[in-house]
Amino acid sequence: MNLRQLLGIDVPIVQAPMAGVQASTLAIAVCNAGGLGSLPCAMLDAAGIRREAGAIQAATHRPFNVNFFCHAPAEPDPQAEAAWRETLAPYYREFDVDPATIKPGPARAPFDAEAAGVLEAVKPAVVSFHFGLPTDALLARARATGARILASATTVDEARWLEAKGVDAIVAQGAEAGGHRGIFLSTDLATQVGTLALVPQIARAVRVPVIAAGGIADAAGVQAVLALGAIAAQVGTAFLRCPETTTTPIHRAALASEAARHTAITNVFTGRPARGIVNRVVREVGPISAKAPSFPFAAAAVAPLRAAAERAGSGDFSPLWSGQNASGCRDVPASQIVRELAAL
Amino acid sequence: MNLRQLLGIDVPIVQAPMAGVQASTLAIAVCNAGGLGSLPCAMLDAAGIRREAGAIQAATHRPFNVNFFCHAPAEPDPQAEAAWRETLAPYYREFDVDPATIKPGPARAPFDAEAAGVLEAVKPAVVSFHFGLPTDALLARARATGARILASATTVDEARWLEAKGVDAIVAQGAEAGGHRGIFLSTDLATQVGTLALVPQIARAVRVPVIAAGGIADAAGVQAVLALGAIAAQVGTAFLRCPETTTTPIHRAALASEAARHTAITNVFTGRPARGIVNRVVREVGPISAKAPSFPFAAAAVAPLRAAAERAGSGDFSPLWSGQNASGCRDVPASQIVRELAAL
Repeated sequence: MNLRQLLGIDVPIVQAPMAGVQASTLAIAVCNAGGLGSLPCAMLDAAGIRREAGAIQAATHRPFNVNFFCHAPAEPDPQAEAAWRETLAPYYREFDVDPATIKPGPARAPFDAEAAGVLEAVKPAVVSFHFGLPTDALLARARATGARILASATTVDEARWLEAKGVDAIVAQGAEAGGHRGIFLSTDLATQVGTLALVPQIARAVRVPVIAAGGIADAAGVQAVLALGAIAAQVGTAFLRCPETTTTPIHRAALASEAARHTAITNVFTGRPARGIVNRVVREVGPISAKAPSFPFAAAAVAPLRAAAERAGSGDFSPLWSGQNASGCRDVPASQIVRELAAL
Repeated sequence: MNLRQLLGIDVPIVQAPMAGVQASTLAIAVCNAGGLGSLPCAMLDAAGIRREAGAIQAATHRPFNVNFFCHAPAEPDPQAEAAWRETLAPYYREFDVDPATIKPGPARAPFDAEAAGVLEAVKPAVVSFHFGLPTDALLARARATGARILASATTVDEARWLEAKGVDAIVAQGAEAGGHRGIFLSTDLATQVGTLALVPQIARAVRVPVIAAGGIADAAGVQAVLALGAIAAQVGTAFLRCPETTTTPIHRAALASEAARHTAITNVFTGRPARGIVNRVVREVGPISAKAPSFPFAAAAVAPLRAAAERAGSGDFSPLWSGQNASGCRDVPASQIVRELAAL
């Protein structure tokens, strides 16, 4: 199946959905440049998804992707959260934060019946999932809308599992990728494989098309993953400084600095492993802390530190998501990034 | 500078030097197939280097590479070694090994004046270094033989450092690579970047040619790294089951099994981080143990466990070096691997 048949696009560029730093504006720009724009829904409620998807449909007739997390939601664990606050206690003192005033963190709801209802109304061309797949019943509802179904695999085992569940294409997420690892069949980060090694092994292991993600920052990177057997490249970090994103000024500055050359996979911001630029909290508490509560409960306790540090102009406690190759990330319109990536 | 001018070869394949599993035989086969064969010298004394290099020169007139480690040798630390044996004590009991009988491990000497003397006699076309570079005086002696000088970089910083020291080309070793990480300016493994992200960033940061290493297992992988700006691909794992290697039967069997899909960077075998297939000692003691003494002193205490386990047919305590893509590793002559890799 070729790119046009699979995703309805001619340019082999999928814009990675990036919850927290973009909504419809970036997706529209990428769609209108010929790529596949993506709307991340992990931090939107049903009304938000409807609003942002509606904005895309009002601005472009091109296909777009609606992305969901589909983790099994953990129960809040007051004991684990108390231990986590204890770990962060020196920082609360330093920033004069009263941990008793900490509010619940931003929700990161998995795909559910309400979201499926929105899909049935919106009918996007593509739906993608991260952290595995929803229940068979929910997956069937998503599929019944007519959407192509994409899902992320970080290992050959995950790719085979997704293929058996009937996905239309697999996003092979190499270890270089920024943001949350899609890992879902294991918790062992040693299973995470670099893009150059992962893509050909998944491409050989499954019959469905493979979209490569992780470390792709320019046309040469796109050409490389096409040589490895991918049908398209999924690119996130390169878009993070585009005016169409909501990336914070502190995050933008970090991406533009030498600091962006040093990233790590860390669980300190949400409880799930995700790649970002190494900053103070990652260095001092992580990168992987056994004390971080389950996803997404780690976030709440870090939030007031992030707020206090950002007020002082510091990104020491901010999730500065980035992949291992921020060299393509510039303050230019997303259409230019798409054009340059596709200059094969 | 093109491949022929730099390395005297036409086929963009460098056989990765792999101390402990190969000597002249593999290098000869790769040279005669048109690639650059490599002789790893880390575990050879001067007489051994002379013997193996002489064997290559007797069997081929093509250029070859002589490779050295160039770590700053650590002093033995009896206290650290005692703590390491304590960590391994349950295994000594299990295998009925008397830790008092442990012998010093295999030497892994850095490049020194004696080795420089051998180079002056042998005059190989290419000399490569791992773990940085030797002293300026020793480097000057290596260079004065007329050899092209190669060295490994695992980060952009290391590549810039090597360029400033005047190397002729840089081996960009991505995180996927098997065996010892070349890392030398940092001890932080979070700095280690996947090949797809590392190669283009190094290629942009330096003026000297870049040879890509890590995760390259077939012609598509070679084509991918050439697209990323590399002048050649350095490949190790794909050769490990060739009849021209001395890879043990246990190691060969592991490489041919599903187990090879799960590797980790571990320090339990030598004290320095190196990628190998996850086995019992890596899982239970590592992958990174703070108790492992400095390189290469961790090896001695593991050796009798390896010997006992291997006698029982088990690789539970063996260093099963492998990169993250063992899919190209087959029991075929090295010439066939070279031909297939170069089928662009």
